[in-house]
Amino acid sequence: MTSYHKPDEKTLQGLKDVANKLRINSIKATCASNSGHPTSCCSAAELMSVLFFNTMRYKADDPRNQCNDRFVLSKGHAAPILYAAWAEAGFVKESELLNLRKVDCDLEGHPTPKLAFVDVATGSLGQGLGAACGMAYTGKHFDKSGYRVYCMMGDGECSEGSVWEAMAFASYYKLDNLVAIMDVNRLGQSEAAPLKHDMETYRKRCEAFGWNTYVVDGHDVEELCKAFWQAQQVKDKPTCIVAKTFKGKGLKNIENLDNWHGKPIPKDRVDDVLKDLQALIQVPNKTLTPKLPKDDTAPADLSVISLPSPPAYKKGEKVSTSCLRAYGVALAKMGEASKRVVALDGDTKNSTFSETFKKGFHLDHVGVAIGCATRDRTVAFASTFAAFFSRAYDQIRMGAISQTNVNLVGSHCGVSIGEDGPSQMALEDLAMFRAIPTCTVFYPSDAVSTERAVELSANTKGICFIRTSRPDTAVLYAPDEKFKVGLAKIVRQSDNDCVTVIGAGITLHEALSAADTLASEGKKIRVIDPFTIKPLDAVTILASARATGGKIITVEDHYKEGGLGEAVLSAVGKEPGIVVTQLAVTGVPHSGKPQEMLDLFGISAKHIAEAVRQTVAN
Amino acid sequence: MTSYHKPDEKTLQGLKDVANKLRINSIKATCASNSGHPTSCCSAAELMSVLFFNTMRYKADDPRNQCNDRFVLSKGHAAPILYAAWAEAGFVKESELLNLRKVDCDLEGHPTPKLAFVDVATGSLGQGLGAACGMAYTGKHFDKSGYRVYCMMGDGECSEGSVWEAMAFASYYKLDNLVAIMDVNRLGQSEAAPLKHDMETYRKRCEAFGWNTYVVDGHDVEELCKAFWQAQQVKDKPTCIVAKTFKGKGLKNIENLDNWHGKPIPKDRVDDVLKDLQALIQVPNKTLTPKLPKDDTAPADLSVISLPSPPAYKKGEKVSTSCLRAYGVALAKMGEASKRVVALDGDTKNSTFSETFKKGFHLDHVGVAIGCATRDRTVAFASTFAAFFSRAYDQIRMGAISQTNVNLVGSHCGVSIGEDGPSQMALEDLAMFRAIPTCTVFYPSDAVSTERAVELSANTKGICFIRTSRPDTAVLYAPDEKFKVGLAKIVRQSDNDCVTVIGAGITLHEALSAADTLASEGKKIRVIDPFTIKPLDAVTILASARATGGKIITVEDHYKEGGLGEAVLSAVGKEPGIVVTQLAVTGVPHSGKPQEMLDLFGISAKHIAEAVRQTVAN
Repeated sequence: MTSYHKPDEKTLQGLKDVANKLRINSIKATCASNSGHPTSCCSAAELMSVLFFNTMRYKADDPRNQCNDRFVLSKGHAAPILYAAWAEAGFVKESELLNLRKVDCDLEGHPTPKLAFVDVATGSLGQGLGAACGMAYTGKHFDKSGYRVYCMMGDGECSEGSVWEAMAFASYYKLDNLVAIMDVNRLGQSEAAPLKHDMETYRKRCEAFGWNTYVVDGHDVEELCKAFWQAQQVKDKPTCIVAKTFKGKGLKNIENLDNWHGKPIPKDRVDDVLKDLQALIQVPNKTLTPKLPKDDTAPADLSVISLPSPPAYKKGEKVSTSCLRAYGVALAKMGEASKRVVALDGDTKNSTFSETFKKGFHLDHVGVAIGCATRDRTVAFASTFAAFFSRAYDQIRMGAISQTNVNLVGSHCGVSIGEDGPSQMALEDLAMFRAIPTCTVFYPSDAVSTERAVELSANTKGICFIRTSRPDTAVLYAPDEKFKVGLAKIVRQSDNDCVTVIGAGITLHEALSAADTLASEGKKIRVIDPFTIKPLDAVTILASARATGGKIITVEDHYKEGGLGEAVLSAVGKEPGIVVTQLAVTGVPHSGKPQEMLDLFGISAKHIAEAVRQTVAN
Repeated sequence: MTSYHKPDEKTLQGLKDVANKLRINSIKATCASNSGHPTSCCSAAELMSVLFFNTMRYKADDPRNQCNDRFVLSKGHAAPILYAAWAEAGFVKESELLNLRKVDCDLEGHPTPKLAFVDVATGSLGQGLGAACGMAYTGKHFDKSGYRVYCMMGDGECSEGSVWEAMAFASYYKLDNLVAIMDVNRLGQSEAAPLKHDMETYRKRCEAFGWNTYVVDGHDVEELCKAFWQAQQVKDKPTCIVAKTFKGKGLKNIENLDNWHGKPIPKDRVDDVLKDLQALIQVPNKTLTPKLPKDDTAPADLSVISLPSPPAYKKGEKVSTSCLRAYGVALAKMGEASKRVVALDGDTKNSTFSETFKKGFHLDHVGVAIGCATRDRTVAFASTFAAFFSRAYDQIRMGAISQTNVNLVGSHCGVSIGEDGPSQMALEDLAMFRAIPTCTVFYPSDAVSTERAVELSANTKGICFIRTSRPDTAVLYAPDEKFKVGLAKIVRQSDNDCVTVIGAGITLHEALSAADTLASEGKKIRVIDPFTIKPLDAVTILASARATGGKIITVEDHYKEGGLGEAVLSAVGKEPGIVVTQLAVTGVPHSGKPQEMLDLFGISAKHIAEAVRQTVAN
């Protein structure tokens, strides 16, 4: 084991100087934008200085290099000091800092990956550590490389449960390449954080969650250098640096006082404040450069990943819990195709059959999956009951801002799950995922299209969501059927169809059953499988609607709001002469048999047939 | 301080007998439904027996009595044993247990408040303790009554961050009337829970989060009686009973084995299993009755709560950050009107001005607010940036199943917040809240209607969501203007309007500005303020559309999916001859000035005017 060498005095003074330069630039930038959080930057100045100019190893001219140490600013409102650090490192022009928060500048109010030195967007507090866990897991277990991951949090966000989920995850997976920093500056947005400066309680919590923990003076560069060095020596445990700091540190009559959150320094005081800081700097020129990383990480090849063999289902075959089974099989095949495909699951493996794929690992986090997918290191799939993605909706929303390519697969959608009751039924997931701007929403209706949806997801940029269903349903497509994002399939048609019916998943099968019933009455209908709900194939839908007298019926195992019906309405809303009847779930469902539920909530074959009869009669 | 008296042998044997009766009934019910989680019930049998027949004080014939101790089964999949306990207590007919999960029976797969002995729906793991915190806070600080709150969790759900948020909350507010029980049966759904039977780590975590903690043998009724008694003696700290148990306890060749989660006992084994359990019962008759509560809690009067005075704004006045300010003022006035109005806020008080109302308390949880509102004890308002409700979407979804009347107020909606950037902008909140079946969605456009929205929320059943905006906007309505849920206002009209424009919040003001511009060109438009997005005033919208040639333009500071535009499309979709043009935000926004953002994302007055010109030209 190497022993610790204290940095020489010149280096220590250099680190102090950098800290104050970072303060100065944070203040100048927030004055220029007349908004932002300078006092939240100042508490972290020594931490940032030591991390960026003593501890971390990275190529300052190539921030996204796969060998670099990673840094996540979970307290995203301290963005100005992150930008100042990269200016000090030479990647950002110092003059550009004054364009903070301007419409044509990528130095936004909170960091986003438009900037090469940002991997995940932050600013929704409590999310950085989960992503950092995904990065550290990837570094240790997939890349098997030496890069380390640093995540800076505020004390306020340590009230968020997501932080403690991540804490448990990191110790469980022995992520000794991960360092969390808690910048305990005592003051939250409106009042003191619950634990104030009770450093021992922070220590106890971190230790109880299995972390090697150091409580330090966050303004003492020497102590920080040592603590970060010690963290590098620890095996099999992540390290938390709990840093006692002061909000607005170094700013006269502002430091450690209330009511300075999110406020630039007033114009009549800023000159004095800057002069004080300037006076502390002994060597104004740049004297410190970051350490370089080891070149021990190969670029990852994520170019097109294809199923190693076509789907092995026969048309008409009733695959037991088809979509679920099909998803598991598809994922295993994709894992076979590429070592970069990783699977994460909530504690629901028995039910979703993703146990078929054993190479992945196991925990719940969408945030972790987003971390795994950063810098294109892996193609990450996270699955759970679709209803439970609702608890990760903030992570998903932020994932869009992070430009993540994560793939999310939800099972057990809708009332058709039956007996387990409403808490387990996803009935708002289409609304959720449609409202994510970068999201592709797959809703496959049989085993073949499920397998193709998984293949397409792996190769589609942005977030992908695949909605799968629980009941047994017939295989509709031949193994060689071609599927494309945004391309619907017409699964039933004739030359004289009276209505276009659009269903997906279980309701597509109900629609086909209704078509059989109606055919025996001499009424023919066109039935469409949209395959993707977003983007929706407006061309096919419009053409079908025109061919069926402008009449459309949508039917979905989802609430009326934000689902398939409204997606169709949006697609045809500007077209005169089209009327859309929506069959969807209304009200809170309950337990019962799947078919009873479909009947009770008006989305079964008999309701579709009746809606067709009424539509035709009008 | 009273000293502990060990229950006599007869009582202890009675408790053991009850535990085994609960096991038997859990097994019989899940066999009858051929689904459910008998092994998860069996680990909790002694805990349930002691709680219901030794510790808790309640009127068994009046489960929702305000004086009763509360019980939350956070591990909702163990529902059958809860039903069995209430059968043993006499409230549920024993024969009814066999109707578990049937369509016409309220004994659903997971508990819901359709049952008088359930206050909040559970089944989405990790949520029970937050609600229990709200109940305990209400008991201690608002009701100032002696009732106590018990919350039973599984070990699997202790991986959820929401549990640790609640743990921090409870100790911070010194909820000594709250007892959490961790049923540590080691096995999760698909594999062992991360900590397995590492009881000391559970203890450390609970203690680090400020809880009085007892690690006990969860199958030893005597030890449990003592631990629950000790918990009653502790002041200023909540107590956690960490119970070491075995999944499937008492079931031969099933106890403590893998692969028994969520599976009824197979038909060929159930007779043997039941015979074993039956043999352990010494006195089959009911011998134990629950303790009665103190009658120390008065009924709460939540009948109509009115603003003590009309809104004090003048038409045309530009109220600084109007909606935000208006919300704070309204809440303070409602607090004046009724002591039962309580306010919870995230750490965002400065920004939302709910600091105007100081009587409430402070933390983040939607779950806590839902707990506060149970048994109609309080009218709870929880506020934060609208974007951050996305992290509570699972709680909100479950809140609908819980029949909660909680009120949620979101500020900082849309791109019009400007410089802070996309992480702080709510652009999916309408989609989220519209897809909640019991939710009323208010979107007031000035200070007067905001105040009325707050008043209406307090008196509207179900979840209410109020969307407020950051920018300064003009007051549109006189103080005596009447507002109703589902009633839109026509704010601009003439006899020859060419288009109906529907906006809300900032976009209503942009629409009015566009109307001025267009009027100078000789084009008149009708402008509608919907006031509530759900329910939407379809009658007024349809009538206006018919009066303006079937032409509607919607404009919203929200993503296109699931928002105002689609709500309008849903309302007019079955009406032939109406075309709807949607102006909405697309793509991920960024930082910039509010007006720059409105222009850049196509929802400002100039875009509305241009859309009107194009619509008229077509």
